[in-house]
Amino acid sequence: MPEYPALTSIPRRLLLGPGPSDVHPRVLAAMSTPLVGHLDPAFLELMNRTRELLRAVFQTQNELTLPIAGTGSAGMEAALCNLIEEGDEVLIAINGYFGERMYEMALRCRGNVRRLEAPWGQVFSPEQVEAALRERPARLVAMVHAETSTGALQPVEEIAQVAHRYGALLLLDTVTSLGGVPVEIDRWGVDACYSGTQKCLSCPPGLAPITLSPAAREKLNRRRTKVQSWYLDLSLIEKYWGQERIYHHTAPISMNYALYEALRLVHEEGLAARFARHQRNAGALWAGLEAMGLSLFVPRSHRLPSLSTVRIPEGVNDARVRGRLLNDFNIEISGGLGDLKGKIWRIGLMGHSSSGDNVLRLLTALERVLPDEGFPVTPGAGAEAAAQALRQD
Amino acid sequence: MPEYPALTSIPRRLLLGPGPSDVHPRVLAAMSTPLVGHLDPAFLELMNRTRELLRAVFQTQNELTLPIAGTGSAGMEAALCNLIEEGDEVLIAINGYFGERMYEMALRCRGNVRRLEAPWGQVFSPEQVEAALRERPARLVAMVHAETSTGALQPVEEIAQVAHRYGALLLLDTVTSLGGVPVEIDRWGVDACYSGTQKCLSCPPGLAPITLSPAAREKLNRRRTKVQSWYLDLSLIEKYWGQERIYHHTAPISMNYALYEALRLVHEEGLAARFARHQRNAGALWAGLEAMGLSLFVPRSHRLPSLSTVRIPEGVNDARVRGRLLNDFNIEISGGLGDLKGKIWRIGLMGHSSSGDNVLRLLTALERVLPDEGFPVTPGAGAEAAAQALRQD
Repeated sequence: MPEYPALTSIPRRLLLGPGPSDVHPRVLAAMSTPLVGHLDPAFLELMNRTRELLRAVFQTQNELTLPIAGTGSAGMEAALCNLIEEGDEVLIAINGYFGERMYEMALRCRGNVRRLEAPWGQVFSPEQVEAALRERPARLVAMVHAETSTGALQPVEEIAQVAHRYGALLLLDTVTSLGGVPVEIDRWGVDACYSGTQKCLSCPPGLAPITLSPAAREKLNRRRTKVQSWYLDLSLIEKYWGQERIYHHTAPISMNYALYEALRLVHEEGLAARFARHQRNAGALWAGLEAMGLSLFVPRSHRLPSLSTVRIPEGVNDARVRGRLLNDFNIEISGGLGDLKGKIWRIGLMGHSSSGDNVLRLLTALERVLPDEGFPVTPGAGAEAAAQALRQD
Repeated sequence: MPEYPALTSIPRRLLLGPGPSDVHPRVLAAMSTPLVGHLDPAFLELMNRTRELLRAVFQTQNELTLPIAGTGSAGMEAALCNLIEEGDEVLIAINGYFGERMYEMALRCRGNVRRLEAPWGQVFSPEQVEAALRERPARLVAMVHAETSTGALQPVEEIAQVAHRYGALLLLDTVTSLGGVPVEIDRWGVDACYSGTQKCLSCPPGLAPITLSPAAREKLNRRRTKVQSWYLDLSLIEKYWGQERIYHHTAPISMNYALYEALRLVHEEGLAARFARHQRNAGALWAGLEAMGLSLFVPRSHRLPSLSTVRIPEGVNDARVRGRLLNDFNIEISGGLGDLKGKIWRIGLMGHSSSGDNVLRLLTALERVLPDEGFPVTPGAGAEAAAQALRQD
C-alpha cells in the first residue's frame, strides 16, 4: 500500500449510527460541482434558496434562518453565545449527554447557569420546568428535542408556553430530529433552534442550520456586550446572508452545495411523507429487535424514531458485536455515551439511511452475530416481525 | 426555471480572486466519496495521514497540528482564544484588513490588546516590533504573513526572534500563503499558525489547518481558565485527533476527504516545485499587467506571489470591469477591502488556479475590457510580456 493511498481505499459502509447518516447519491454528486466565489451572484441566489428551504424544514417564518459554517456543536455554541451575556440567568434541562454539553458551553458564555435534571432516557414535563422557573426566573431555557445519547424525544410546545409565561426565551437542540421528526418552530413558539446537517437531512457534517425568532433577535440586537465569538456572531453573519451581503467569512461553498441538494430532496419528498417514513422504518426496527428478544431503552411514549436505543443483553460484548457488524457486514451502529457506555447500542435510521431494506439488513446481521455471544436468536424472527410491521403500516 | 433548480445551473468560473481558488478535479471527486463514521478505523487512519501531510506543508514537527472544523476565520479565532486569557497582554501588528480582524477577535477574547500599525501594503521591520515590546512586553504577538487585503508578504523569522527575546509567543496567519509560498514554522520559530483550505491548497473552504509549538501548547495547558469557545478548544479537539480518540464534535468527513486529497497533490508536486510555480506565474502576471500600463500596489521586495494587487487606473469603473470579467469571460477577480475599495483589484493565482494559461486568459480578457473604460491597451502586449516571462523562467 502506498504511503498516502487514494480515497478509493475507504470502505463502503452502511451508516446506522447516530450520524453521519448515509448521504444520498445526489448530494454526493452535488459536492463535486466546481466552485464559484462566495460573493458570486450565482452563489448569493443559492443562499437565498437555501434559506427558503431551511425555513420550510424548520416550519418557521423567521427571517434569521441560515446555516452556520461548522458542525452541529458550532450551532449549539452559536445559539448559546449569541443569546447569553455575562451574568444572564440560564436554565438548562439536562437528561443526556448533549444537555450536559449545553451546560458546559453556557458556563463558558459566562451565564449564571442552573441545571434542571432528569434521568437519562426520560423527558421533562411542563410542570418541572415551571417549578424551576417559579423558584428563580431565567432569561433563557435550553433543552434538547431529540437526545442523541438516549433516544428520547422531548415534547416542546407546552414547555415553550411555560418559558414565555416566565419571561424566558426557549432554545431547542434539534440536531437529531430536524428533517426526520416534526419540528414546528413557529407553532410551538421556539425562540432559537439549531441542528446539524449529517443526521435526518442526510448531508455530510459541516454545517449547522440555525433559526432565531424575532424575540431572540431582539435579545441579540439589545446586547450590552459583543458576542464573545466573532466567528459565530449572528449579527455579523446575518449581514452576509441577508440583504447587505457584507463579507464576514468565506462560506464553505461545497458544503452549501450539499445542503442545498439535501434540502431539495426533503422538499421533493415532502415533510409529512418524510416523517411517516422515519416513523414506519423505526417501528419495523423496534418490532424486529423485540422479536429477537432485545429490549428498547426508551418507553414507546417518548421514543425517538430517528435514533433507537437498545439494551445490550447481559453477557454480550458491546465492542465485539459492533466490531463484527462493521468488519464483517460493513454496518456502523454506535455504543452508549457517558453512563450508558456498554449498556446500550444506538441505531440511527436517519434521512437516506431510513429504509426498510436497511432495517432488514441490520436485523439479519445481528441475528448472525448475537448467537456467537451466547444470546440465542430464532432464525428469521426479527426480519419476519419487521417485514410484517412494514406491510401493516 | 424550476423553483429550486439543480446545481447544474451553477456557472463554471475561473477563480482568480482572493479565494476560493479553483479546486483540482481530483479534490472535487474526493468529496463524492461515500462517508464513513467519524470514529471508523478507516477515518481515524485518514486523520493520522492528514496530520502528517499537514506537518509537511507547515514544515513543522509540532504534534498539535490538525484541521479546525471551520473556515480560515475559525482558525484565527481558535488560535487567539486558545492562547489569550482575560487580561493577557497582546500585541497585534496591523497592516491590512485581516490584522484588524485579529485585533477585533483578540478584544473579544478579553486580552489587553495593543495595536502596532503600518500603512496598508507595507510590512513590519523587526525593529518596529522590538520597539513596541520594549515599551511594554506582551505574552503574544500576532501578525499576518500574507495580507489578503493588500498583497504584502511579511518576513517573519527575525520578528519571531524578537518576540521570543521579549518572552512573547508569535502567532502567524498564513491563510493566503500556506502551500503556495514558503511557510517554515519550525525554522522561523513560529509558535502558532493557522491557515485556510481554499487558497493555495486549492481545497474548498471549510477547514482551517492549525499548528501549535510545544511552547504554545504549554501556554494552553497552563491556562487558569477554560477556553471561552468549547467548539474551538484545542485541548478537547486534540483528544479526538490524538491518541485518545475521545469524541468531541462530528468531524466534517467530506471536507476532510477533500483536504486529504489536496494535501496528496501538494505532496506529489513537492513544496519546492509548488512554490516555484506560484512565483513563476505571478511573475508572468506582473510582467503582463505592467506591459499593459497597469501598476502594482505592493513594491516587488515584499510582493506576495499568491495574491497580486493592481491599482485601478483613474477613470476606470471597478465594479463594471469586474462584472464584465465575470459575466462575459467567467473570470472572478476581486475588488479592494476597506480603504482600498475602488482603488485596487485583487488577483489570486493560488494552488490549482496558478497556471500560465490562466495568466494569459486573464490578461486577454482585461485587454478586451479596459479599452471600453477609456484605458487604451496595445493589443497583445500583456500576453506577450507574460509569455516571455514564462519562457525565461
